[in-house]
Formats: sequence, C-alpha cells, structure tokens
Amino acid sequence: MTRQIRLGVLGCGNVGAALIELIGAQADAIEARTGVRLEVARVAVRNLSAPRDVALPDGVLTRDAHEVVADPTIDVVVEVIGGIEPARELITAALGNGKPVITANKELLANVGAELYAAADEAGVDLLFEAAVAGGIPVIRALRESLRGEPISRVMGIINGTTNFILTKMTEQGTDYAVALAEAQALGFAERDPTADVEGFDAGAKAAIIATIAFGSKVVAGDVYHEGISRVSSHDIAMATRLGYVVKLLGIAEADAATGEVAVRVHPTLVPKTHPLASVRESYNAVFVEGRAVGSLMFYGRGAGGSPTASAVLGDVIDAALNLTNGTHGSLGTFTRAKIRPIDETSAEYLLSMEVADRPGVLHAVTGVFARHDVSIRAAEQEGINPDARLVFITHTAREAAMQATVRELRSLPEVRSVGSLLRVIGG
Amino acid sequence: MTRQIRLGVLGCGNVGAALIELIGAQADAIEARTGVRLEVARVAVRNLSAPRDVALPDGVLTRDAHEVVADPTIDVVVEVIGGIEPARELITAALGNGKPVITANKELLANVGAELYAAADEAGVDLLFEAAVAGGIPVIRALRESLRGEPISRVMGIINGTTNFILTKMTEQGTDYAVALAEAQALGFAERDPTADVEGFDAGAKAAIIATIAFGSKVVAGDVYHEGISRVSSHDIAMATRLGYVVKLLGIAEADAATGEVAVRVHPTLVPKTHPLASVRESYNAVFVEGRAVGSLMFYGRGAGGSPTASAVLGDVIDAALNLTNGTHGSLGTFTRAKIRPIDETSAEYLLSMEVADRPGVLHAVTGVFARHDVSIRAAEQEGINPDARLVFITHTAREAAMQATVRELRSLPEVRSVGSLLRVIGG
Repeated sequence: MTRQIRLGVLGCGNVGAALIELIGAQADAIEARTGVRLEVARVAVRNLSAPRDVALPDGVLTRDAHEVVADPTIDVVVEVIGGIEPARELITAALGNGKPVITANKELLANVGAELYAAADEAGVDLLFEAAVAGGIPVIRALRESLRGEPISRVMGIINGTTNFILTKMTEQGTDYAVALAEAQALGFAERDPTADVEGFDAGAKAAIIATIAFGSKVVAGDVYHEGISRVSSHDIAMATRLGYVVKLLGIAEADAATGEVAVRVHPTLVPKTHPLASVRESYNAVFVEGRAVGSLMFYGRGAGGSPTASAVLGDVIDAALNLTNGTHGSLGTFTRAKIRPIDETSAEYLLSMEVADRPGVLHAVTGVFARHDVSIRAAEQEGINPDARLVFITHTAREAAMQATVRELRSLPEVRSVGSLLRVIGG
Repeated sequence: MTRQIRLGVLGCGNVGAALIELIGAQADAIEARTGVRLEVARVAVRNLSAPRDVALPDGVLTRDAHEVVADPTIDVVVEVIGGIEPARELITAALGNGKPVITANKELLANVGAELYAAADEAGVDLLFEAAVAGGIPVIRALRESLRGEPISRVMGIINGTTNFILTKMTEQGTDYAVALAEAQALGFAERDPTADVEGFDAGAKAAIIATIAFGSKVVAGDVYHEGISRVSSHDIAMATRLGYVVKLLGIAEADAATGEVAVRVHPTLVPKTHPLASVRESYNAVFVEGRAVGSLMFYGRGAGGSPTASAVLGDVIDAALNLTNGTHGSLGTFTRAKIRPIDETSAEYLLSMEVADRPGVLHAVTGVFARHDVSIRAAEQEGINPDARLVFITHTAREAAMQATVRELRSLPEVRSVGSLLRVIGG
C-alpha cells in the first residue's frame, strides 16, 4: 500500500532544483522499494519569475514560505535556503506544526543546532541534516546511528572542497596560493570573496556540527579555533613533500575521555603520505573517524554541488517519510554544553621552519629556546640558503601554549631572520 | 525512562567476546544517550568450559542455543556463530518468535539472505547485518538507508583483508606471492588453508550481499564470477607499478539501468594510483560506490577483527533496541531474483602480457589477433628479454568473450611463447 508524502521545499537554488529533478527521476523506484510516493507539492522561492533549471507544475511555486510550513497538507519540509534567518524561524514553525524537517544548512546548525534538535524532539518529529556536512557523504548518519555505541576519540575531516582544491593544485603543480585560488575562482570552486572558505570559517561550522553529534555535547561555531590556508606558501608545500607529508586543511574534533573536554580546531595540517586523508584530492571531502573499538574509518565523496547534496537530502527525506508512516522518529538525545578545551591547552606535533644567520652557535641558541619551553625535537634539518641557513624542526607532541611561547622567543632572537609557518603534524 | 533490553548472544568467539566486553564498557554511555540499557542476558556456546576472554556472571552461559531463541525474556538475538546451519535454523526461529536478529554471518546471507530478509519482514522485526560485510565499516546502513533513493550504477570493494595485505606486501616490498602469503599466515591475517580468501570466495559472498542491497534484487554467492590472486606474479605487480597502477582484488557489482541486468565479479584489478581505492593498504577494506546523483563515495576501515566487527554489531543492536522500544522496524522490501549478466557478456579494459619470439612480423601477427576479435588496443609496450621480447597491451573497453577468444588464439600462435595474466583495468 502506497503512502503519498507531500513535500514542501523552501528554496530552489542549486540544491533545491537538483532535488526536485532527482525526485522526478526516482519517485517510481523509491515507491517500489519503500511504499512511499514522494510528491513535490510546494516550492517557496524569493522570485517567482527567476529562471530555473527545473520545470514545476502550475500552483507549486509560491513566494510565501510561511504558508508552506503552515500548510496542513504538507507532510515533510525541506529547507535549502541557507543562512540563519528566516531559516530558523521557518524550521521552528514547521517542527511546531508537527512536520519533519530536512535541512542542508550548516551555518544554522553550527550556531543553534542543539536548540533545533531539542525542538524536534519535543515536537516528536525528525530533524535530519546529512547534507549540512560533507555534502553527499553519509557521515552524519554513521555518527548518529552506526557509531552510537562507539567510544569515538577523534574525528578529522577534509570538509571544505575549495581549500582542498587549492592545496591539491599547490602540491601537484607547484602553483602559488594566489594562482591556485584564481584557478579555483575561475572554475567556480571558490567565491569571489573566498574568506569563508580559505580562512576556515566554513570548515569550522561543519566541525562544530560533527563534534556535537560525535561526542553528544553541544559545540557551536564560536568554539572552534581556526587558521586558514592563505598563509601556506609554496615553500611550506615543497618542504612537506620532501619530508613525506601532504598539507591538508583539517577540521579536527577531539574528546578527552578522562576529563570530558572537547577541542575543535581547523588548521593546515601535515598528513603523512600513507594516511588515507592524504589521497583525498581536488575538491573531494573526507571524514576520518577514530574509535576505540572500530579503529579507523574514513568516509569519502563529494562535499558540495547541487546533485550530491540533493542525494543526501533525498536519503533523509525518505527516512522522514518512512518514520512518519511508522509513527516514529529518530532522536538525537539531549545535549549539554560541551566543556571546550582552549586551543592553548591542546597538544600536537609541530613543524616549524625559520631562516637564521649561518654562523657558529646559532643552532645551539635556537634549540635552547625549544628546550626552555620543554618542547622536544623529533627531527631537524638545516639547509644553506646563502648567506643564511634555513632550519626546519618537527617536534614531538607539545602543548600549544609552549609552542607559541617558543615561536615568540625565537622571533626575538637576533640570529633568527624570520619564522615561517607553524604547521601541525598528525601521525601515520 | 530507561528501557532494559536483554540480549541473547549465540557464539562467543572473537566477535562475541569483543561485543560483550564493549557492551560492558559502553552500557552507561549508551543508556545516557538513548534511554536503552543493554544487558547480555544469555550467551550460547558449544563448550561451557572453554577458556574465554571475557568474564560472565553465573547462569549466563548455556549450551542450548535453541533455548535462547525461544526464551520469552530475551528481547534481541545476536548470531555470531557463522556458517549456514545451525545459524539459519536459529535465526529463523528467533524471527518467528518476534525477536530482532543481528548477524555477522556473510556465508549465510550470501546464500539465503533474501529468504531471511523476507522472514524478518513477515515477522515485523529487524534483521540487521552491518558486520557481515566489511567488518566495522558502516556501508550496509549507507546502502540501506542513506542511498535508498540514489540510482547506484556500480559498487567496487576491497572486501577481503587477507588478500589486500598480501598484495600490499607484494607491491611495497617486491615480495613474491608465496612469501607474502606465508607472512600473512604468520601474522594471523591468513588461514592455514587460505583458499576461501585468496581464491575470492570470501569476497564473492560479500559482493553478493552488497549487490542485493545496492540494487534491490536477489544475488547469491553462486552468481558471482571469481578469480583469486594466487596467480598474480611479482612481474604483474612490477608492470602495474610501472604503468601507474596498483593491483587490488576487487569485488565489483554493476547494474545496467537499461536492461536491469546485474553483474557481480571478483578478480585482481589494476587500479590507477590516483584512485581512492589505490591508497587502501595492508588489511584495510574499502567500498567505493558510484551513483548518478551522489557521484563517487568511499567507505574505508577495518574489515575484520573482533573489536571492529563487534562495533558494527553494537550499532545494529542499539538500532534494533530503539526500534523495539518504538514498536517499529526497518524493512528491506522484497527482492525478486536478479537477472544475472554472464561474465562473458560483461565489458572491461584489460591488461595482457605475453612473451613472444623477437623477430620480424611478430607484433603484426599478435595485433592481428586483437583486431580479428574487435578488441581495440589503447596502449602497447615492447621490451626485449633476450632472446625473446615481452609485449604488454592495455585495451579499450572490450567484451569478456572477445577478450577470452583473443587470449585463446594468441596461445595458439607459434610466435607466442607464453601468455601471462589477464588483468582487468578500471578507469581513474
């Protein structure tokens, strides 16, 4: 027996149009497989006469999104508008009206996700958001469901396609940052104002959502420490390559089982070439999960784009439709505010390069600074760059605060001409 | 409000013991997060006095598995015995008694999975089996749920850790097959009789399960064409490396959208070095999924081992427990028998090497054989191996039947001394 599910779609940009097209193509197969018939009943847009990639029957388009979420004939609401308002208001209204909501809105969830999850629980309906993190990759479902019982210690993700594209070009073609960025912009992988991507804000929002779901405690975008890739030089990349590493912008969420503290950060990271994250190229995304029982897992795929994102939305829509039919819904549980470990108190291995005067006693002076701050050196390399020398150090695990103090003191040494990027290193 | 769920575990080997230990460690966290308290109430074993890695309270162990599946106080049954009987009989009885069942039994599902899925549906309870394919990697859930609406065209997996370990050693250390196999056996990655792994039977069973779930039509182990890795030579590996490929044993399930035919095969495959599957090393597994909307996805992790497998079982146990609490269950729908495309009618690119007499006209004679069978050559290489020559060809996409006919005719040519491995090639 088929159950008809009427969808109200808020927004008809890339993702909305791809979703409507995909539902048109797949509705028969979905019905055969699940007994649910999906119908795109209403689509709310800002401008009724804007050109669209998808054809819709008369009467489906409306300018009134509030009317859609209030419409008693609408069973499930899909929000693909983005941004905080009016998305929050509309989602809250839909949940309040007992309608399951699917959203792809990372900005919203990274800021007020926990409140919305609680609102959904209270209303007894689904709030699903696979598409908000890493586009088409089903990592949220894995964290929410498959790994619900797994003691997860760390999640590391390449969760911004723009920066991964840029870093891939810099690595494989020896391109400068500015040139790679321009190429990404020309190909439509980067915005005209690339700040949100290249400075790590976009990855930070996704990392906050991942941390919340992985550790079951509320982390918001403002909790995430971030450094972007705009200061990564082609010299950094070349050095990483020589030492057997690839530079990736990683979002890293860690939980300390002993203290319950959570640390979430985004920064350029040296990844060993044999690590699975190292082989994630171009604009692809991947999320690497470490658990005590399951070991290492990685989820790889398209992190953006209308069609992969629509695929993730559709998976959630079917889920919500089936749950509605069965009179049930998925719950995320309740979230208490995470105890955030400040970046100063986190630990990592670091790579630090600097240019120094090439004369007796310099290496001794420089290594003395590391020793004074209790930062232990794992590998060192000196290369002559006439008349100066370049020193590269990789440390053992050290505290961020100690490392930052080391950098500050090194900058003040008369023998040190300049201190380059400080890059974190992950193990193999 | 907490709901107590009493588990009956059938079997207490590696996976069973790891599951019981994991539940002991995680029960509080799971209860806090889901409101479900898991209790290992009964554990059926063959030998009550065998040494065990896990401590159990008095009265939990029993030799009578039938009693466990009939016990009205048992809520959920976990089957980690393996093999077809008595596992089938016990699972069928448990489902008939209205108990959700979690199984890690690939052999069983690859042979009678569709019947068991139907029995579960009829009984209105869950039958979950994440652990049966690729151990701790949550790929079954992704296929069952996230990708339910996705038009999947192909799934390719490294789904046998033993053979991936052996191929990794051969590739990275230039080891011969026999030496790598012996190392795998010494490390416990391969059985004393390695046939099931190295000849592709194990991967074939998992590929049948994957194909059934991905395409929604019943595929059994006997439908899967398989070639193992025992005839892959270190020369094949060296040649693959030189040409920019890695040799992997892949399980490949393809669906033809036009005809509805499904082809499932396991064979050594040349994977381009830049393909995500190429970076899956050692005993790790990975499953690569291609869909029209979602593009390429890959799921990577530990494909075997007590602890990762137990993690997958636990995810399913929590799912079944929550569904039971909500009075619902997941359904796989009904499966009609797949139309299997015979291996002769499948298409691939091929790499073929041969040793030939080094004299005028030989290349002409050899290429004539390819042309007669309508097999188009994409790349060719000749190297002198005094007094003979070695020829290596990579074809464009060709039909298996045509390729096999080409090989047969080449073998009959007087100029051809020997024909080496025929290896399929996947694109980048």
